[in-house]
Amino acid sequence: MYRHTTQLQFHAKPERPDALFAAKLQELVGGQFGEMTVMMQYLWQGWNCRIPGKYKDMILDIGTEEIGHVEMLVTMMARLLEGAPSEAQAQAAAANPALAAVLGGQNVQHAIVTGGAAMPTNSQGVPWNGGYIVASGNMLADFRHNVAAEAQSRLQTARVYNMTDDPGVKDMLQFNLARDTFHQQQWLLGIEQLIEDGIVETGIEDSHQDVEKTEQAQTFYSFHEGSRAGEGRWAQGTTLRGDGEIRFAEGVPLADDDALVPAPDPLLFATYDGSQGPGKPGDGTGAHLQGAQNLVEKAKEKLTGE
Amino acid sequence: MYRHTTQLQFHAKPERPDALFAAKLQELVGGQFGEMTVMMQYLWQGWNCRIPGKYKDMILDIGTEEIGHVEMLVTMMARLLEGAPSEAQAQAAAANPALAAVLGGQNVQHAIVTGGAAMPTNSQGVPWNGGYIVASGNMLADFRHNVAAEAQSRLQTARVYNMTDDPGVKDMLQFNLARDTFHQQQWLLGIEQLIEDGIVETGIEDSHQDVEKTEQAQTFYSFHEGSRAGEGRWAQGTTLRGDGEIRFAEGVPLADDDALVPAPDPLLFATYDGSQGPGKPGDGTGAHLQGAQNLVEKAKEKLTGE
Amino acid sequence: MYRHTTQLQFHAKPERPDALFAAKLQELVGGQFGEMTVMMQYLWQGWNCRIPGKYKDMILDIGTEEIGHVEMLVTMMARLLEGAPSEAQAQAAAANPALAAVLGGQNVQHAIVTGGAAMPTNSQGVPWNGGYIVASGNMLADFRHNVAAEAQSRLQTARVYNMTDDPGVKDMLQFNLARDTFHQQQWLLGIEQLIEDGIVETGIEDSHQDVEKTEQAQTFYSFHEGSRAGEGRWAQGTTLRGDGEIRFAEGVPLADDDALVPAPDPLLFATYDGSQGPGKPGDGTGAHLQGAQNLVEKAKEKLTGE
Amino acid sequence: MYRHTTQLQFHAKPERPDALFAAKLQELVGGQFGEMTVMMQYLWQGWNCRIPGKYKDMILDIGTEEIGHVEMLVTMMARLLEGAPSEAQAQAAAANPALAAVLGGQNVQHAIVTGGAAMPTNSQGVPWNGGYIVASGNMLADFRHNVAAEAQSRLQTARVYNMTDDPGVKDMLQFNLARDTFHQQQWLLGIEQLIEDGIVETGIEDSHQDVEKTEQAQTFYSFHEGSRAGEGRWAQGTTLRGDGEIRFAEGVPLADDDALVPAPDPLLFATYDGSQGPGKPGDGTGAHLQGAQNLVEKAKEKLTGE
Amino acid sequence: MYRHTTQLQFHAKPERPDALFAAKLQELVGGQFGEMTVMMQYLWQGWNCRIPGKYKDMILDIGTEEIGHVEMLVTMMARLLEGAPSEAQAQAAAANPALAAVLGGQNVQHAIVTGGAAMPTNSQGVPWNGGYIVASGNMLADFRHNVAAEAQSRLQTARVYNMTDDPGVKDMLQFNLARDTFHQQQWLLGIEQLIEDGIVETGIEDSHQDVEKTEQAQTFYSFHEGSRAGEGRWAQGTTLRGDGEIRFAEGVPLADDDALVPAPDPLLFATYDGSQGPGKPGDGTGAHLQGAQNLVEKAKEKLTGE
Amino acid sequence: MYRHTTQLQFHAKPERPDALFAAKLQELVGGQFGEMTVMMQYLWQGWNCRIPGKYKDMILDIGTEEIGHVEMLVTMMARLLEGAPSEAQAQAAAANPALAAVLGGQNVQHAIVTGGAAMPTNSQGVPWNGGYIVASGNMLADFRHNVAAEAQSRLQTARVYNMTDDPGVKDMLQFNLARDTFHQQQWLLGIEQLIEDGIVETGIEDSHQDVEKTEQAQTFYSFHEGSRAGEGRWAQGTTLRGDGEIRFAEGVPLADDDALVPAPDPLLFATYDGSQGPGKPGDGTGAHLQGAQNLVEKAKEKLTGE
Repeated sequence: MYRHTTQLQFHAKPERPDALFAAKLQELVGGQFGEMTVMMQYLWQGWNCRIPGKYKDMILDIGTEEIGHVEMLVTMMARLLEGAPSEAQAQAAAANPALAAVLGGQNVQHAIVTGGAAMPTNSQGVPWNGGYIVASGNMLADFRHNVAAEAQSRLQTARVYNMTDDPGVKDMLQFNLARDTFHQQQWLLGIEQLIEDGIVETGIEDSHQDVEKTEQAQTFYSFHEGSRAGEGRWAQGTTLRGDGEIRFAEGVPLADDDALVPAPDPLLFATYDGSQGPGKPGDGTGAHLQGAQNLVEKAKEKLTGE
Repeated sequence: MYRHTTQLQFHAKPERPDALFAAKLQELVGGQFGEMTVMMQYLWQGWNCRIPGKYKDMILDIGTEEIGHVEMLVTMMARLLEGAPSEAQAQAAAANPALAAVLGGQNVQHAIVTGGAAMPTNSQGVPWNGGYIVASGNMLADFRHNVAAEAQSRLQTARVYNMTDDPGVKDMLQFNLARDTFHQQQWLLGIEQLIEDGIVETGIEDSHQDVEKTEQAQTFYSFHEGSRAGEGRWAQGTTLRGDGEIRFAEGVPLADDDALVPAPDPLLFATYDGSQGPGKPGDGTGAHLQGAQNLVEKAKEKLTGE
Repeated sequence: MYRHTTQLQFHAKPERPDALFAAKLQELVGGQFGEMTVMMQYLWQGWNCRIPGKYKDMILDIGTEEIGHVEMLVTMMARLLEGAPSEAQAQAAAANPALAAVLGGQNVQHAIVTGGAAMPTNSQGVPWNGGYIVASGNMLADFRHNVAAEAQSRLQTARVYNMTDDPGVKDMLQFNLARDTFHQQQWLLGIEQLIEDGIVETGIEDSHQDVEKTEQAQTFYSFHEGSRAGEGRWAQGTTLRGDGEIRFAEGVPLADDDALVPAPDPLLFATYDGSQGPGKPGDGTGAHLQGAQNLVEKAKEKLTGE
Repeated sequence: MYRHTTQLQFHAKPERPDALFAAKLQELVGGQFGEMTVMMQYLWQGWNCRIPGKYKDMILDIGTEEIGHVEMLVTMMARLLEGAPSEAQAQAAAANPALAAVLGGQNVQHAIVTGGAAMPTNSQGVPWNGGYIVASGNMLADFRHNVAAEAQSRLQTARVYNMTDDPGVKDMLQFNLARDTFHQQQWLLGIEQLIEDGIVETGIEDSHQDVEKTEQAQTFYSFHEGSRAGEGRWAQGTTLRGDGEIRFAEGVPLADDDALVPAPDPLLFATYDGSQGPGKPGDGTGAHLQGAQNLVEKAKEKLTGE
Repeated sequence: MYRHTTQLQFHAKPERPDALFAAKLQELVGGQFGEMTVMMQYLWQGWNCRIPGKYKDMILDIGTEEIGHVEMLVTMMARLLEGAPSEAQAQAAAANPALAAVLGGQNVQHAIVTGGAAMPTNSQGVPWNGGYIVASGNMLADFRHNVAAEAQSRLQTARVYNMTDDPGVKDMLQFNLARDTFHQQQWLLGIEQLIEDGIVETGIEDSHQDVEKTEQAQTFYSFHEGSRAGEGRWAQGTTLRGDGEIRFAEGVPLADDDALVPAPDPLLFATYDGSQGPGKPGDGTGAHLQGAQNLVEKAKEKLTGE
Repeated sequence: MYRHTTQLQFHAKPERPDALFAAKLQELVGGQFGEMTVMMQYLWQGWNCRIPGKYKDMILDIGTEEIGHVEMLVTMMARLLEGAPSEAQAQAAAANPALAAVLGGQNVQHAIVTGGAAMPTNSQGVPWNGGYIVASGNMLADFRHNVAAEAQSRLQTARVYNMTDDPGVKDMLQFNLARDTFHQQQWLLGIEQLIEDGIVETGIEDSHQDVEKTEQAQTFYSFHEGSRAGEGRWAQGTTLRGDGEIRFAEGVPLADDDALVPAPDPLLFATYDGSQGPGKPGDGTGAHLQGAQNLVEKAKEKLTGE
């Protein structure tokens, strides 16, 4: 359950409104790596964390902090949009080249849809969507994604930072940059902790390692002549799991399998010349259903024989 | 420029068709972390890599390999869908409980839309989209995402692996598991190489480090009573950049800023009771435009004075 | 800023797992009118509310409660998915008709993507998106949408309620039904309060009422012969604003305007036979630009004349 | 079945082209509350209306009128886009600050994709989608949404109205404002009629009222200190259904349920430390399947015993 | 403007309900090539047709017919969904293998969201979207797309036809098949008419033919060894425009351009090793802005010199 | 399997950067008919082609060429974006009207998200998606779509061609125009070849022709008074299949079927007045399930009687 306070975690006070910059700042609100994403991603991961205690608490603490970050950005947006042009603009633009730039780059949904406030979209107006949330239940894989999300988010913040000279905005973004640095580090340390606690063995997600093919787990394949990819550490030296030596090899077909697909079911009207024999009809008489027939035999035995 | 051969990189031969499993395998084709994603992501990163030589070659080699992985999975899908039911199904299902399960779990677009072949969608029919591609131009941030994508992809493959007992499918998935292990490692080694080559300093993406706030870059904030998050490595010890000690603190407002938004422009018809004074009209007479007026003055000087 | 506690607002304990029902419950998590929508919608409206005090506090209180509702449903989902089938399923289904139904109706992303937990999607796997959030800054229009969202949400909950016989699930849904009843009422009372406080005049959103056409604001038009629509209250009696009598009329063209579009710019290669004369080229010489020319004249005067 | 005439319902004649304004007007064409939405929403509701006569006729009459509204807006758009710039623009912009504003704010798909005509998208280029249609089969819930849609639509129209000074455009928008006023009223009167006809009891959608929890249907919960939400009518007085008194209470956990999720199936590779005992494998041997086993026993009895 | 009648264009009466088949039929309602698409596509093309008379009338006649086709399918859907299971289903399924198949394959939104009616989505629940509409203003290009849409639509209808044995459904689909045949032919004849009327020269869309490169307009390039693509008519013989002979050639780089991208702006923090010299800063001092400087010089001259 | 070379198929060298034009060029990269679409569409069709030899080889050759076209455009984009403004822009714009136009029309994701490179989106920022891929397995229907895609793509390229005067960009676009001409022709010749090879009979996709209704396959219906649609070839003369004469007729209901939907299941809470009798409950006791009961009887016979 959640509670809120009326104060922001950190101030979000621009020195002056700036509708042009607000249009750009949308990327940090509702973009793929905006604050809405990390907020929902960490809450989701935390709610589904299977380990009570320090892990679950840590994830939920950050998720809860991120609700407040969305709040800060949305508040900043409304303040940046104060007094943004809402009237017939042609004359104004003609008389004012600086205004013309503002008008051209303004996000019109800020006026038409929200009435002077942030949209839950990215800088191009694409709505934020749940597909941005990554929460697999596997903490190694998810922490890897969290590091990546914080790195991309921080990079975008650094780029946006140079697009304004408003001291109030810059002050808040300096706070955001710091948190993104801290959170990158935190998820990396989370992986170290998982290893230290013996929950995972290495930083490589390799569930079901027993069945993976050994050679392909240790070979770099190259697919063009003169590739210099072999010069990197990724193509030589010991594997990170320490179970072998990395090889560099030319990419060639590793098995004799022509990329052909089978003759089609005639009732699907796929184009076909008969060159591979007649297609198997999907009607319960083909080989496919022979397997099913066997299964239903077993089912009958089970139902009647037990 | 690209060329192709008629053989697959690795065989993709199921022992028998299985339309029910094909519906699940869609997740590895067109899901967020399916083969379409890594193919397009690495090609895009490679095309835009600013460092000719081992880095650009490495990224493009893998991107090119992944085209072949999509090809393998699409071929596997068509073979799994051979002879899948395409006719009136109620009677068949009534007579055959095993068939009923197949029919219920089948992806009907495999029949109606593709005529017995893979869809460029995930397992729920959501079309693959370009938003899955992450390519920021910053190799540290992108390699971090690549590690994460390979980890999620491998995890999903391991889960799918247990959903079939077809030896041919399992053989191909063992190959995929191996490549996902190798590629995770490769991107991690890519980060090590970036550090070794002096292109980045640490594994933390911290562009514009000079402006970030120091305290917030080193503090873990907790937002619930009794949180045990402080027990983890992420809340104590030296920072990964080695520039300080991590602190654990209760999350409190760090600045005195009530989350209020300003009075609205009357022409936007936002609901307002006047309690914060009159709203600034967005018509070129407000404070917002005074800044713009100053700018146009300077523009006039530039245009006439130089 | 936000804080959380470790306890749920209300219990979310199913008596037994039920993966088939979990697939349906997704609609209440990430559907258009699921808990994610009302949570984000109310937080967004609250953050942007321009009236400090009872209105802003009310909206944010509900928004904060709804975070906890998402948490409850996500927790319920993971409990419903405990021990859901993750292995090769054909044989199992053949031996077990009841299992067959479960397998056919199961959401495979619950296994492959989340590892036994909720997805941030609707029951068809479509990701929740920010376009579901309605927050216009106009409280009358937004409260109207909130009533509608709660009504749709409650209706869906009532429908889902009959799809399970698990007493634990039913208990939680009874709580949800109650909150949806209360919240519908609350937003309706919010509109009454707005009227009582003199912030809006009637329940009709009619900003800029002064410019709307009177006749069309009071007439029902019918577009088919024998329509009985005129029998309803909507086509007769006094208007709700009390400013006239509602009329019933046949729908006919109210102005003489053939639905023709102008001749195209030749450089856009739209198909055209010349029957409306030559198209205006979009190159700065057409009539369109004469207006712009006038404007730049005025701009020149302003720049040089002041 | 439908028929059409060649004349528009109301004229759509701008005095002069204006590509910049056309980019904004897209929101009223293909936005969430644009004309495409109400057209499709009312047709869909009308086709599925279960009550022949005045209700079905009324809904279809409006739906049919709205086809003509989309036609009017699409025609207006093509006329606004006449002679919009389609050529190399840098020089033109340099010579003409007014033109620069137009160019910057122009929707380039109007030239590249449609050749001088409207797009079926909102003002940001996001395609209109079927998710905007709300049609639940429950007329109370749907009429509530229709009121809300008309209110949002009218508000957006009023905002757009101030962004042009073209008398022809304003004339058409005055017609649109009037229809939005009328339609809001009409759906509110539709609810009154439903009550008068005894089809619903109150304006609250409360299907299955018998099972909802009474206390939670009458209590406002607050989730922050010092909340003034209790001052509003929504937190005091008689309920709208007249079945009790509204209470104001602090939000606290109402049941003792820690937000924990169960131990995971080992084959899903979710991260877990064993602290809640072993996870239930999803293989037909867990408790989950014992319920299914019971069911299949009953099925066997039914199949053999009847 | 539009009018409607209460009768369907053709009957839509299934002999009995079939919720399983209704789930599949969604593809023909709201899929990429479903009836919603052709309805909206033809209305849109018709509204924007620049040639009054037989072309505009023809396109709008078909568009108007298609409104009625959506109506027919939506009506059929509600009838197919009559009495579809809405209650707790596990026991029922256990006792009834035929019901199990229905339950597994049922679209749960048909119960939860629409209350027994069609959804505006495809068979996977993906909402129909405006991106399916193709309307370029160029009738040759659009008629080509219309032929394709009718062909895909007819193919899907033929596939769906075999998935039911309900005589009433089959009767309606026989009508749909016929219209799809007729409409394919009609758009092909539309292209013939365009040629006969001298509006286009050939069936090849080649606006601005004067600037295209001749050799690449007549050569088939092959990108794999042993390709037999040269055996087809597409790689030999006279071109369709009759302006040359088609050539077959191996695909090789036609110009000497290494796929390198320039050094990045330092403020974008793209990874770079300096090997291509310093990046151009995007600050108004780079070469990019020299062009802009020239332009503003010209602008100044224009503003002051005229 | 695929290989790549380091050289582009054709040069992609702009004479100078142009961020404004780059924003437009996005449509040809990631729009509905951009290079990403044809690349993925042809690869997908080729992988699933059921006829080994000239057809499969031809489709894959083109698909492989198109990978290189995406590469060319992405490279062109990065070069156009060299030195694009990344810093605080208000002052710069004020001093420079030409720059103002650039800034207003710039795609900010080119700076914030990709760091000076192309996005996998269209010109409005909508991500490319797999729904653009059309691959039905039926080569006639697919080739029809390929012709249409190339026609739309070429038209857009011709429109974009006039939006730049950069000789390097124009040179590459002349190459693209030529390939789009060639590929349109090629798919049309592909249809001729299918006919010549006896794989299809005519250019009309008419699978299951035996069941379509004859009259509706030969009649043009008109839905407005005074329609001149009858003057076109599409409404008179012999059918393209040569099996009859085309008729022109007024559109009237062809069957007596009022567009009514049945009484609803009470448990779905759809609004209903009882006028059509009681709704059928979806609980296994209605007529719907009588069919299912019959089926399970037959199933029981099969299970026990064989």
